[in-house]
Amino acid sequence: MADSKIYTASTTAPVNIAVIKYWGKRDTKLNLPTNSSLSVTLSQSDLRTHTSAACSSIFTENRLYLNREPQDVSGARQQACFRELRVLRAALEAADPTLPKLSTYNVHIVSENNFPTAAGLASSAAGFAALVRALADLYCLQNTPTELSRIARQGSGSACRSLFGGYVAWEQGHAADGSDSLAVQVAPASHWPGMRAAILVVSAAKKDVSSTSGMQATVATSGLFRHRAEVVVPARMEAMKAAIQKRNFEAFAELTMADSNQFHAVCLDTLPPIFYLNDVSRAAIRVVEEINRVAGKSIAAYTFDAGPNCVIYYEQENEAAILGVLKPYTSGVSGWGDRRETVHARIPEGFNAALCEPLKEGVSRVILTGVGEGPVKTEESLIGADGLPLAL
Amino acid sequence: MADSKIYTASTTAPVNIAVIKYWGKRDTKLNLPTNSSLSVTLSQSDLRTHTSAACSSIFTENRLYLNREPQDVSGARQQACFRELRVLRAALEAADPTLPKLSTYNVHIVSENNFPTAAGLASSAAGFAALVRALADLYCLQNTPTELSRIARQGSGSACRSLFGGYVAWEQGHAADGSDSLAVQVAPASHWPGMRAAILVVSAAKKDVSSTSGMQATVATSGLFRHRAEVVVPARMEAMKAAIQKRNFEAFAELTMADSNQFHAVCLDTLPPIFYLNDVSRAAIRVVEEINRVAGKSIAAYTFDAGPNCVIYYEQENEAAILGVLKPYTSGVSGWGDRRETVHARIPEGFNAALCEPLKEGVSRVILTGVGEGPVKTEESLIGADGLPLAL
Repeated sequence: MADSKIYTASTTAPVNIAVIKYWGKRDTKLNLPTNSSLSVTLSQSDLRTHTSAACSSIFTENRLYLNREPQDVSGARQQACFRELRVLRAALEAADPTLPKLSTYNVHIVSENNFPTAAGLASSAAGFAALVRALADLYCLQNTPTELSRIARQGSGSACRSLFGGYVAWEQGHAADGSDSLAVQVAPASHWPGMRAAILVVSAAKKDVSSTSGMQATVATSGLFRHRAEVVVPARMEAMKAAIQKRNFEAFAELTMADSNQFHAVCLDTLPPIFYLNDVSRAAIRVVEEINRVAGKSIAAYTFDAGPNCVIYYEQENEAAILGVLKPYTSGVSGWGDRRETVHARIPEGFNAALCEPLKEGVSRVILTGVGEGPVKTEESLIGADGLPLAL
Repeated sequence: MADSKIYTASTTAPVNIAVIKYWGKRDTKLNLPTNSSLSVTLSQSDLRTHTSAACSSIFTENRLYLNREPQDVSGARQQACFRELRVLRAALEAADPTLPKLSTYNVHIVSENNFPTAAGLASSAAGFAALVRALADLYCLQNTPTELSRIARQGSGSACRSLFGGYVAWEQGHAADGSDSLAVQVAPASHWPGMRAAILVVSAAKKDVSSTSGMQATVATSGLFRHRAEVVVPARMEAMKAAIQKRNFEAFAELTMADSNQFHAVCLDTLPPIFYLNDVSRAAIRVVEEINRVAGKSIAAYTFDAGPNCVIYYEQENEAAILGVLKPYTSGVSGWGDRRETVHARIPEGFNAALCEPLKEGVSRVILTGVGEGPVKTEESLIGADGLPLAL
């Protein structure tokens, strides 16, 4: 009798926000980067993708649903992840013939984000990390997260970093087949648990230029890009790892801000120029600079991915100073939660509050989060007994 | 009997807008640049400084008036120009003892701009070029504009290029004393007389960060800046000179846009980052890109100095195509003059006119001009018989 069982596994996976930015591929098919990068994984309490994977002999095709909408699975990125994970599963089955032949079945993937898609909030990173983690669990793979990062990276470059919690490096590697282009944990969240992140969501509209096409335009046309990739970033990677090991926030902050600025600089040095920052983003930069000026040292660090949203890293001990400045200008938007009561407006003496005015109209939501853990297995499945997404 | 005569000379001098940008000094006292630059001199019909210089034994101090307001003349830049020009005059007097001893007299300088000061419209370039040219005429100096450029450069770097009309290079030079950091004419205006410039004045407010402090912050903190100065610009200078020699507008346009973007990229790569472009500037870039896309080739080139104003270069033959797109969105502001009747709104088929919308609110004035001549001597003096500024 044929095995008609539906096998399932579910996981959640986090978003990560890079502090040394990934921008530029040396191999677009394998998503091999032109430089290493480093990120902080954010707490899944606030930002996560929840993904269930199922496979069964009765499934007639591969399917993928994102926020209940069917997605195209014929893309090379999804196909690469499916194929590579099946290869690992097939090896297990070959070694132990009693195992069900899951590698021969079609899969159904059902995925949900608790945040807006493609608004520069690293949704594809969490999405592909969750997809790879859920399939690896479904297939009972014993591979380490670093080994799986080789596969997640083929889905979306930065996804490889979302397979870990804490502080994560993606080492660019040099092999043509990408076998050494892998993510490794620099330090777990518990090493520096007080790292917080306040995200000012400036626009949840879809981006103008996708990261993939944008970064390749930069590689092709920027006169400054190679110098960044070959000279600037390697030194910054070492400095950033040292800052994290020593929990040196000032060094962390200064490297983070410089690298965000340089990433957007090479975007601007692209033909045609790519703009992700807008006037509200720039106002947020000035606010962070003013917070640091008044504090007499860098207690906050801004960074921007491929979008206008500002991510502000700070340490827990300075929360009152950071959020106290942001609150009076953003308290009308969602995301404050409990802190609407516990955080008090606090504009320090000598602070140029006029710099904050553009935040009032420009910020549509805040997300108050911090460093967090890597993917977590869950029993909560998004897939019903029929192998299709559960109704909401 | 003492000579109490008031000697005067008057000149007008043009603005220039660089297409290969000057940004960064290797010597801040002598204004020696880290890279060569190249500009187009704009017509004095539209933008000019008018300056009269006077000297007399009866003047008790050096004085400078800009737009009728007394200015500080104790600054090192003004003092350097006065001193260097006196040295040249003193040499003439030593060679011919019959000459009046103008080199021993105090000077009065009276200067007027026909455009807003310090709004990113290169007012200091025109101002120092006019000051040097007027004093050189007052002193009857026979030095060439290139020789005088050594002096004007000490007043304001880009002023050295405003001593010429047409297409002008400022060769960075290598000597420690700056003796080879000089401006030369690449081609006169008559070589390529059809070059036009439409300036969209986005804000006439004073700048946030002055060029002088901004460029040195870039030199000190940008990881990309040296690569630009040492590798990118030298190649672009040669390519730009060739484009001008051949009147190859497409090459001229692509180099101009790329270099403007790269200048603003190294500003963004500065700590703290320097922003001169705002959302209206970026909209203007998208409009120019769309004009070129619809034309199927680069018929317009944007460039931005240290401010948000957009300068769009184009050739006369394409005026209807360029201004026809701009007019419907900016016809309410001053600067259209005769062209308010002669230029007709013309949005080509397939043109994404939504890109132009931000110009409606964001552009406060247009200046429609073109390539022009260098400083011109004038009999119209701004200085009265008392040696003071004439009443308006």
